[in-house]
Amino acid sequence: MGRFVNERLIRLALEEDIGPGDVTTEGLVEPDLEARAVIVAKEPLVLAGLELAQEVFTTLDPATSFVTPFKDGDMVKRGDIVLEASGKLRVFLTGERTALNFFQRLSGIATYTRQFVEKTKGFSVRVTDTRKTTPGWRRLEKYAVKVGGADNHRFGLYDGILIKDNHITACGSISEAVKRARKTKGHLLCIEVEVTNLEEVKEALKNSVDIIMLDNMNLTGINKAVTLIDHRVLVEVSGGVSLESVAQLAATGVDIISIGALTHSARAVDMSMQLLK
Amino acid sequence: MGRFVNERLIRLALEEDIGPGDVTTEGLVEPDLEARAVIVAKEPLVLAGLELAQEVFTTLDPATSFVTPFKDGDMVKRGDIVLEASGKLRVFLTGERTALNFFQRLSGIATYTRQFVEKTKGFSVRVTDTRKTTPGWRRLEKYAVKVGGADNHRFGLYDGILIKDNHITACGSISEAVKRARKTKGHLLCIEVEVTNLEEVKEALKNSVDIIMLDNMNLTGINKAVTLIDHRVLVEVSGGVSLESVAQLAATGVDIISIGALTHSARAVDMSMQLLK
Amino acid sequence: MGRFVNERLIRLALEEDIGPGDVTTEGLVEPDLEARAVIVAKEPLVLAGLELAQEVFTTLDPATSFVTPFKDGDMVKRGDIVLEASGKLRVFLTGERTALNFFQRLSGIATYTRQFVEKTKGFSVRVTDTRKTTPGWRRLEKYAVKVGGADNHRFGLYDGILIKDNHITACGSISEAVKRARKTKGHLLCIEVEVTNLEEVKEALKNSVDIIMLDNMNLTGINKAVTLIDHRVLVEVSGGVSLESVAQLAATGVDIISIGALTHSARAVDMSMQLLK
Amino acid sequence: MGRFVNERLIRLALEEDIGPGDVTTEGLVEPDLEARAVIVAKEPLVLAGLELAQEVFTTLDPATSFVTPFKDGDMVKRGDIVLEASGKLRVFLTGERTALNFFQRLSGIATYTRQFVEKTKGFSVRVTDTRKTTPGWRRLEKYAVKVGGADNHRFGLYDGILIKDNHITACGSISEAVKRARKTKGHLLCIEVEVTNLEEVKEALKNSVDIIMLDNMNLTGINKAVTLIDHRVLVEVSGGVSLESVAQLAATGVDIISIGALTHSARAVDMSMQLLK
Amino acid sequence: MGRFVNERLIRLALEEDIGPGDVTTEGLVEPDLEARAVIVAKEPLVLAGLELAQEVFTTLDPATSFVTPFKDGDMVKRGDIVLEASGKLRVFLTGERTALNFFQRLSGIATYTRQFVEKTKGFSVRVTDTRKTTPGWRRLEKYAVKVGGADNHRFGLYDGILIKDNHITACGSISEAVKRARKTKGHLLCIEVEVTNLEEVKEALKNSVDIIMLDNMNLTGINKAVTLIDHRVLVEVSGGVSLESVAQLAATGVDIISIGALTHSARAVDMSMQLLK
Amino acid sequence: MGRFVNERLIRLALEEDIGPGDVTTEGLVEPDLEARAVIVAKEPLVLAGLELAQEVFTTLDPATSFVTPFKDGDMVKRGDIVLEASGKLRVFLTGERTALNFFQRLSGIATYTRQFVEKTKGFSVRVTDTRKTTPGWRRLEKYAVKVGGADNHRFGLYDGILIKDNHITACGSISEAVKRARKTKGHLLCIEVEVTNLEEVKEALKNSVDIIMLDNMNLTGINKAVTLIDHRVLVEVSGGVSLESVAQLAATGVDIISIGALTHSARAVDMSMQLLK
Repeated sequence: MGRFVNERLIRLALEEDIGPGDVTTEGLVEPDLEARAVIVAKEPLVLAGLELAQEVFTTLDPATSFVTPFKDGDMVKRGDIVLEASGKLRVFLTGERTALNFFQRLSGIATYTRQFVEKTKGFSVRVTDTRKTTPGWRRLEKYAVKVGGADNHRFGLYDGILIKDNHITACGSISEAVKRARKTKGHLLCIEVEVTNLEEVKEALKNSVDIIMLDNMNLTGINKAVTLIDHRVLVEVSGGVSLESVAQLAATGVDIISIGALTHSARAVDMSMQLLK
Repeated sequence: MGRFVNERLIRLALEEDIGPGDVTTEGLVEPDLEARAVIVAKEPLVLAGLELAQEVFTTLDPATSFVTPFKDGDMVKRGDIVLEASGKLRVFLTGERTALNFFQRLSGIATYTRQFVEKTKGFSVRVTDTRKTTPGWRRLEKYAVKVGGADNHRFGLYDGILIKDNHITACGSISEAVKRARKTKGHLLCIEVEVTNLEEVKEALKNSVDIIMLDNMNLTGINKAVTLIDHRVLVEVSGGVSLESVAQLAATGVDIISIGALTHSARAVDMSMQLLK
Repeated sequence: MGRFVNERLIRLALEEDIGPGDVTTEGLVEPDLEARAVIVAKEPLVLAGLELAQEVFTTLDPATSFVTPFKDGDMVKRGDIVLEASGKLRVFLTGERTALNFFQRLSGIATYTRQFVEKTKGFSVRVTDTRKTTPGWRRLEKYAVKVGGADNHRFGLYDGILIKDNHITACGSISEAVKRARKTKGHLLCIEVEVTNLEEVKEALKNSVDIIMLDNMNLTGINKAVTLIDHRVLVEVSGGVSLESVAQLAATGVDIISIGALTHSARAVDMSMQLLK
Repeated sequence: MGRFVNERLIRLALEEDIGPGDVTTEGLVEPDLEARAVIVAKEPLVLAGLELAQEVFTTLDPATSFVTPFKDGDMVKRGDIVLEASGKLRVFLTGERTALNFFQRLSGIATYTRQFVEKTKGFSVRVTDTRKTTPGWRRLEKYAVKVGGADNHRFGLYDGILIKDNHITACGSISEAVKRARKTKGHLLCIEVEVTNLEEVKEALKNSVDIIMLDNMNLTGINKAVTLIDHRVLVEVSGGVSLESVAQLAATGVDIISIGALTHSARAVDMSMQLLK
Repeated sequence: MGRFVNERLIRLALEEDIGPGDVTTEGLVEPDLEARAVIVAKEPLVLAGLELAQEVFTTLDPATSFVTPFKDGDMVKRGDIVLEASGKLRVFLTGERTALNFFQRLSGIATYTRQFVEKTKGFSVRVTDTRKTTPGWRRLEKYAVKVGGADNHRFGLYDGILIKDNHITACGSISEAVKRARKTKGHLLCIEVEVTNLEEVKEALKNSVDIIMLDNMNLTGINKAVTLIDHRVLVEVSGGVSLESVAQLAATGVDIISIGALTHSARAVDMSMQLLK
Repeated sequence: MGRFVNERLIRLALEEDIGPGDVTTEGLVEPDLEARAVIVAKEPLVLAGLELAQEVFTTLDPATSFVTPFKDGDMVKRGDIVLEASGKLRVFLTGERTALNFFQRLSGIATYTRQFVEKTKGFSVRVTDTRKTTPGWRRLEKYAVKVGGADNHRFGLYDGILIKDNHITACGSISEAVKRARKTKGHLLCIEVEVTNLEEVKEALKNSVDIIMLDNMNLTGINKAVTLIDHRVLVEVSGGVSLESVAQLAATGVDIISIGALTHSARAVDMSMQLLK
C-alpha cells in the first residue's frame, strides 16, 4: 500500500528537481539507451526507504526493475550494494539525486535511531519519536524511526490527548485541564499530562491520568517522580535526550523516552549511485 | 510574493499534523479566547523563516498579528524573543509545532551555513549548497542557505549544465560529452564538468568548459589543479567538506566550495513558544 | 479554523454544480445587482453548518455579509429565518443549491442525532457515531453528530485500536489479537475488542482490554454481558440500533451505544432560500 | 472510463479513513498474507457501485482480483454474495469500510429509486432526480439514480436553462425572464420555467418555453395545468414527492416527476464483508 | 466570481514561469520599491482579460491596485493605456510576461472574433465558436469569443447532443442514432445532427431533430439545404469558415455559423507593459 | 518520461471537455464495442505531439493500442495516416476532440517553426522561441519548437539572467544592473542585456556581458551593432520577426534570432480522426 501514500511527495520532489527538463541528460544521452545501476552504502548504516527509492525511478518509467538481498531495517556495511536496477539510462541519471535524497535521509534517521535503541538494550523502556518532524514528512520519518527499532509517539494532534504546559496555563490547573479532557475526548484515547515538578506529578496522579510526561526534569527529579508514581501510571521522559544521556534515563525505570533528535537532528547517511559498465 | 509559493507545503504540513482535529486543544480551550504568544531562541542562532512561521498561524486564522525587531539573517542570542504574536489562543496551541518545525529547521540550516561562511572569511571564495536537499523543500532550504550568507548552486536539473561522472561514462569521454552539451544547451547556460584527476582537468580545459568541479580530490591534487587551471576557468571543489576542512580548501584559491552538509546534515536549532500571561 | 479545512470540499462542490457557468443566472441577471436573501427552516430542525453555508457564498464573493441570531446546535422552528445575507444577487442565485445541500444534510444529521440523544436522557450512556460516513465527508458528518449532542467514535483507522471479527479470524483468537495489539500500538491508544457472545466477553476480559463492543447481540445477551463485565471495562453496543430500540439499550447499563444510522440513514431536512424584495 | 473520473473521490475517502495508517491491521496482520473476501447483501437491494467498490481495493493494491455474477442495476436477495475478491488480507481489512461506504450509499439510492420507478409503471412518465445531491457526489449519485431505473435531470447549472422563482423575481416577470434567456442561451439548450399557479402557466405558454415545471402545486392544480397545457410543451412536477404520492402524480398525465428525495433522503442499504476461511 | 474559477490556471502559469525564482529581478531590485506601470495597446484591438491580467499581479501581491477607463469588449486604439497599476516594482517585473500572455491571447481571440462578427452584420445569423480550443483554456477562450461579440456553441460533451459522422457510423444510420439519443438524453438538451448531403438532410428532418449542421458543404449544397429545410429546424454550417467566406455563408440564410478558427487560429495581439518614471 | 509530466494538463483538458459525461456517446454507443481509428493529416505538416495524443486515449482506457510509421519532427503529406489506434469505440469518440486539440496545436507550432528554420538555412544562426507562450503550455510549446528544428530560449525567469528595459530603468543604468546581476547570480548562468541603440551596445560591451540582445532595432542599426561587437559576445535580435524578415536578419551575422510568433501566432494545423469500418 506504499505507492498510494507516497505518490504525492515523490511527484513534488521530482517536479522541483526536474522542472522543465534535465538539460544535461537530455542533451547528452539518447532516450533509448538501457543501463544497469547500483546504489552503494558509503558507510555502515540501517536501511530505510528501499521501496521509496524504487518508486522514484518507476514514477519516471514503470518498466524499471530492481533486485536487492536486503529489506528495510537491515544493517549494511560500507561498500554493500543495497539495490541493483535495470532500465533506461536517462531514468537513472535524472532520478538519481531525488532517489538518494529520500533514501539517505530516511536511512539516516533509521541509523541514528538504532544507536539510541542499542544504548537502552537491557532496559524495559520504549524509545519513541516526537512530532518534531520535517513538515510534509511526518509519515515517512515516523516509518524510519520504526525501522530503526524505536516506537512511534502519536502521529499528530488527533490520536492522543497530550496536555502540555500551554494547555495547563490556558485552563488554570492540571485538574481543570484533565477534567475537560475527560469530558470531551473519545473513549479510545488516553490522557497524558506534561509536568515539570513533583507537585504537578501529584496533581496528575490525583486526576488518574494514563501517562505522566516528565518534561526537561533532571535525573534526581526523575528518580523521585518514578518512586512517587510507583507503576500506577506510565511515565515518559522528554527534553534534550542525547546518545550520552539516554542510558542513564533508561536506568531510572521510566516507561518511555521520547526523543525529538531522532528526526530533527539526524544527518543523512552517505550513499551513491554507480552505473555498471 | 512568499505566500503564493509556500502555501502548498504549509497546508500539507498543517493537514498532516491536525488531521481531523486537535483533540486536546478543542476539548480544553474555548474557541473565542484571545492570547499573546512569543517564540524564543533557546540557543544562539541565525534566523530563517520568520515569514513562514507567521504564515502557518495566518493560514489557521488570517486575523493573527505579529511584531518582531528582527529579520531573516539576523544572529540572535539565547533568550531573545524572535517573534511576538496576538490572536486566538487555539490558533497558537494548534499551530505551535508546525510553525516551530519550519522555523527551527530553516534557522538550523542558516546557522550551520553561517559557520562555514565564517571559516572562509578573508578568502575570495563562494560557499554554495548542492541539490542534496530534503525532497519537497528545495526552494526553502536554498533560501535558508542564502540567509546564512552562502550562495546557491543550481536549483535543479534545468538551470545549469553539470556533466558528472555517470554522464561521462555514458558519452565515452569528457570531450564527447562537452561537444554534445554545447550543441544542445540554451545560450544562457554555462557548462560545468566534474573531474577526479589532473588528466581530466586537462581534457576539460582543452574543451573550454566554463567551470571545472574537482570531485573528492585531496589537497595536493586540488593545489595542482588550481595551478594548472590558472584562472582560465572557474574552479569548484566538492565532496565531504566539513567545518574542519573548509578553511584549508578556501586557501587553495578555488572559486567555489559546494557543501551538501549545509542542507543534508544541519540539525534543527532550539526554539520554543510561550504564552504570555 | 473552519475555512482552511472545508475549502477543498466547498470548491469541489461549487465546481461540480457551476462547471463552465450558471447559464440561467448569467443570462438573466446583471452582474452588479445587489440583493438580500434569507434561508428559512421549512420544518423543526437542529442547525448544523451555519458557517459552511456562509463559506459557500463567500467563496463566490468574499464581500458577502451575514447576520443570524442562531448558532450550530440550536433547535429552530418551521418558518424561522436561520440566516440573512447581503451581497450580489448573482452570488445568491448561483450558490443557493450548493449552500443548501451542505446545510440541509448536516442539519439533517444533527436533527436525527438529537432524537437519539433525547431518547437516552436520564441514562448515563454515550451515544456515538461510527465510521459509516459519506466518503469525503468524515469530518463534517462527525461535526454534525457532535452538534446534535452525541459523541464521536474514532475518526479513522488511526486513532484507536478496534479489533473486529475479521481481525480475530486473521489472528486465530482474541487473546492472540490483543497480544499483538498491545505490543505494537502507541501508548496513547486504548484497545477495544468486538465480541458476539459471552465466551468472547470472558476472553476479552481475561486479556484486560479497555473496551468491549457487543456486536449485534440481543437484549438478553447484552444484559448478561453487562453483569459479567461489572464495570471492570467500558461496554459498547453496536449494530442496527434504531430510535425504537435505543432507550431499551441505554437501560441495560452499557457505557456507549454506537449508531451507524446517525450518518448513513439521516435524511436531509427541509430549508429554502428566498430573496427579500 | 470509470477509473479516471472516480479516482479523486476514492483517494480523498481513503486518505480520510486511513490517515497515517491502519494501526489495528498493521499491528495484527503480516503484510504478505493472502485472503479471499466476499461482500454480502444483508437485505434485498438494487446494486450500484460494483466497479467503484473494486477500485477502492485496487487503489490500495492493483493486484487485487474480483469475480461477480452481477452487474449494476441487478436486484439481489438477502444473503447473495455480490462480489468475491482475492488479494492481500491487509488490503481487505483496511479498505473494507471505505468500499462499503461507497457501495451501500449508491446501492441505497438505486434501491430507493427503483421503488419510485415501480410505482409509476404503466404510466408514460419520466422519474428524474434533482440537483439536491451530496456535495462532491453529483456524478456518482446521478449514476445510481440511472442504475435504479430513473432518468437524470440536468447535472448542474450549465446544461439547461431552468428559470426559478428567484430568477423571475429578479427579472420582474416570466415574460422578461424568458426573453432574456432566449437571447443569451446556447442553441442546444431548452428553456424550462418554474410556475406555481395557472396564471403563470398561461404566461409561460405564451412565451413558448420548452418545459413548464409545476412547483409544489396540489393535485387539483396539476390536473388543471395539464389540461390547459394540453401537450403543447412538456410538463414537470416537483416538490415533496413521496412513495405515497408518486403514482397519483403520474396519473395526472405529466411528463416528468422530479424527486429530490432520491438522493437527499435515501438511506444506505445493509451490506457486509466477510473473510473466507 | 472570476477569481474562484481562474485561480488554478493563473497559479499554474506563474509556477511555470517563476519556478524557484525570478533570478534577474530578485538580484537587481530591492523588495520594497514601489512603482507604477501601464499596459499599452500596440495595435488596434478588442480588449478581453482585463480582470485576469489584474489577478496575475494580485496573486503575487494582493495589495496591487488598478485603474482603467475600459472594460472587456471595448475596442481600443494603438497607443491607448488599457490598464494602469500601482504596487511593488518586483511584482510588475516578475508578473509582466504571464499577465501579458493571458491578456494578449484573449484579446487576440476577441479581436479576431469581432472581425467575423462585423462581416455578418445585417444578417440574422449567429456566429459561434466550437470545441477546438486550447486544452485547459476552454472557459477562458469561450469567454473571449463572447466578448468579441459572437455566441458560444456547447461548452463540452455534456451540454448538448451533437451526433457527428462517427456516431452515425457507429449506429448504422441517422434514424437509429436519433432514436437512441431521444431515449437517453435529458429533457433540457436539444438534438443536433451533422450531415454532409441532401439525403442526410432529409433523413434528419424526418427524425425531427432540433438543429441540422451542414458540415463542409459547398455554397450550392448549403443553399439547397436551406431551401429544403425551410425554417422547420435551425440550420448550422461548419467547416473551414474564413473571413473571406463568412459573409457569403451568412447570405444563405443559415441560422448559425460555427468557426473553429476563432480559437484555434487567432494570433495574440500586441501589448506591452511600461514602468512610469 | 513523458507521461509523468503531461498528466496534469491532459486530465485538466479531459475534465473540461467531458465534465459529467459525454451525453451523445454514452447515449448512442454500447460500452463494449471495439473499433479502429486513424488520425489523418489534412494538409502538409510537421508532426509534434504523437505521444501526447496517445496519452489522451490511454488516460481514458490504458488498454488502447497504437501503430505509426512516424515520429515527432517528421514532415507528412496531406492524406497521410499519422496514427492508427485500436480500442474501445467510446474512447475514440469521447477523446477525439481533446487528442486533436493537443496534436493540432503542437504540430501547428512545429510546422510554423520549420518554415522559419528553412528560411535561415545556410546561415550559422540559431532561431529560438521566447517566453510568449500559452499559460500552462510552456513546456509543451517549447518542445514543439524544438521538434520544428529551432532552439529554446530560457524556459522561465529562473534559468538565465535577462536584463530588460524595465530592469535597467529600475537600476538606473546598464552598468549598475550588470554589476548587481554579477554579484547575485549563480555561477552556471550567463548574463544577457537588452539594448535599443549603439550607445547601450557599448555600455554592455564595457561590462563584459555574455549576450547582447538588440531589441526592435532596424537593419541598419543591427548591422552597425554586429560590426561594433565583432564576435566578442553573442548577439541576439528580437522583436517583430516575421517569415518575410527572418532571412535578412540572419544575413546580418547575428548569432540568435528569437521569435515570439513561433508560439503566440502559430495556427493549429488541420487533422481529423476517422473510424475504420
